[in-house]
Amino acid sequence: MPTLYHHTMSTASRFIRLVLSEYGFQTDLVEEQTWEKRKEFLAFNPAGTLPVYVDDNMRALCGPTIISEFIDETHGVLKRDRRLFAEDPFQRAEIRRLTEWFLQKMEQDVTKPLVRERVHKLIIPNGLGGGAPDSKVLRTARSNIRHHMKYLTWLSGSRQWIAGERLSYADLSAAAAVSVLDYLGEIDWNEFPVAKEWYQRIKSRPSFRPLLTERVRGITPVSHYADLDF
Amino acid sequence: MPTLYHHTMSTASRFIRLVLSEYGFQTDLVEEQTWEKRKEFLAFNPAGTLPVYVDDNMRALCGPTIISEFIDETHGVLKRDRRLFAEDPFQRAEIRRLTEWFLQKMEQDVTKPLVRERVHKLIIPNGLGGGAPDSKVLRTARSNIRHHMKYLTWLSGSRQWIAGERLSYADLSAAAAVSVLDYLGEIDWNEFPVAKEWYQRIKSRPSFRPLLTERVRGITPVSHYADLDF
Repeated sequence: MPTLYHHTMSTASRFIRLVLSEYGFQTDLVEEQTWEKRKEFLAFNPAGTLPVYVDDNMRALCGPTIISEFIDETHGVLKRDRRLFAEDPFQRAEIRRLTEWFLQKMEQDVTKPLVRERVHKLIIPNGLGGGAPDSKVLRTARSNIRHHMKYLTWLSGSRQWIAGERLSYADLSAAAAVSVLDYLGEIDWNEFPVAKEWYQRIKSRPSFRPLLTERVRGITPVSHYADLDF
Repeated sequence: MPTLYHHTMSTASRFIRLVLSEYGFQTDLVEEQTWEKRKEFLAFNPAGTLPVYVDDNMRALCGPTIISEFIDETHGVLKRDRRLFAEDPFQRAEIRRLTEWFLQKMEQDVTKPLVRERVHKLIIPNGLGGGAPDSKVLRTARSNIRHHMKYLTWLSGSRQWIAGERLSYADLSAAAAVSVLDYLGEIDWNEFPVAKEWYQRIKSRPSFRPLLTERVRGITPVSHYADLDF
C-alpha cells in the first residue's frame, strides 16, 4: 500500500488526504515531526517538507502540487464528473491559482505562523525552536485571517463551489486551511455566514471525517470543531 | 499580441521568457517594478508577483507554475520531441520537482535575497525598503550558493539534460536562476566545471540571447556574462 507522510496540523497534508479520500485511495499514514529530521524521511524528501507520497515501488512524490498533479494525471482524468480538476486549460489555471492561494499565500500570511506559534512551539524542545508563542507574530497572523475569510466569502457566495460548478482541488485546499484554523478556534464564524455555509457542505463529506476525529497532543479543538451543524 | 509583465532580475520571469521563446511565442514585454504597486498591474494580479501573462482576451495567468502548465497544455503537448515537459506522469513529477527546486527553494535560499540586497535596494526609495545591503543576508545567501551549484553539478553530470534526455522546464528554470546570479558575478565557475559545460550549452540557444543583452540600471554585469565561451 502507498504511504503518506503527513502532519495533522499541516494544511498541505490535509489537502492531499482529502484528495486521496475523495478518489477512494487507501494509504498508510505516517505522522512526521519534520523538526526531528529523521534520516528515513529525509531520504524521501531532502527538503524535509510535507506531505510526501511513497508508492508501492518506493518512488516518492513530494509536496501538494506535485502529488495532486500526479493523482490527476493517473486517476483524476478517468473520473469524469467526479474529477477534482477541470478539462479546460483556463479553468485548470483558475483551480491552480486558488489552490496556490490557499496552500501558499494564506499559508504564509496566516496558517503557518499560527500553527508554528500555537502548536509546534509547545512540542519542539527549547533549543530547537520551541518555547513561548510570539505575541507579535500571533497578532499579525490573526489580522490577516479576516482578509482571507472575506475572499473565501466572495468566492463561495458567487459560485456553487469556489472554482465553479464542481467540487475541485480549490475547495479541498481552502477547506484544509480553514479546518486547521477552526481546530485552533481562530475563525469567528458569526462574521462569515456565507463561507460557513460552504464549509458546512464540505465538512459533511465522508472524506472529511478522519480529519475531524484527530487530535493534537496538548491542544483540545474548539468545541464545535467536529460538529457538522455548528 | 499577449503581454508578459516581467522583471529582468526575476528568475521566474526569465524562466517563462525562455519557455515562450523556445516555443516561438511573440509577446509584448512590460518591465514591472512590483514595489510601485501600480493599479493596472494589481488588477491583473492582486498578489503583486511576477511574471503575469495576459492573453489577447485580457485573461491573466499569474506565476511561473500556472503559466508553464497552461503553455504545456495548450502548446507543448503538440510539440512532440521539442516538448519541454514529459508524457510519463513520473517523469512529469520529476520535472516539476526540479523546476520547483530552482524557482522556489534556490530562490528563497539564494537568488531572492541576493537580488533584493544588491539590486532592488539600490532602486527602491529609502522609505519603501531601499537602502544599503545587509551584509549578514548577503553572507548567508552566498554560503548557500555552493550547495545549489553542487546539486546542479550532480544533475548535469549524470544526465544529458538535468531531468533526462531532453531539454525541459527543469533546465530552463535552473538556467534562469543561474543567469541572474551570473549577471551579479556571484558564481565562481572554476569551482563548477561540469555545471559550466551544461550552462554553456543552454546559454548558446537562441532563446537565451535577449536575456544576455539586457542591463539593469546602475549595475554592470560581470565581464563574461554575455560570452558564450566563458
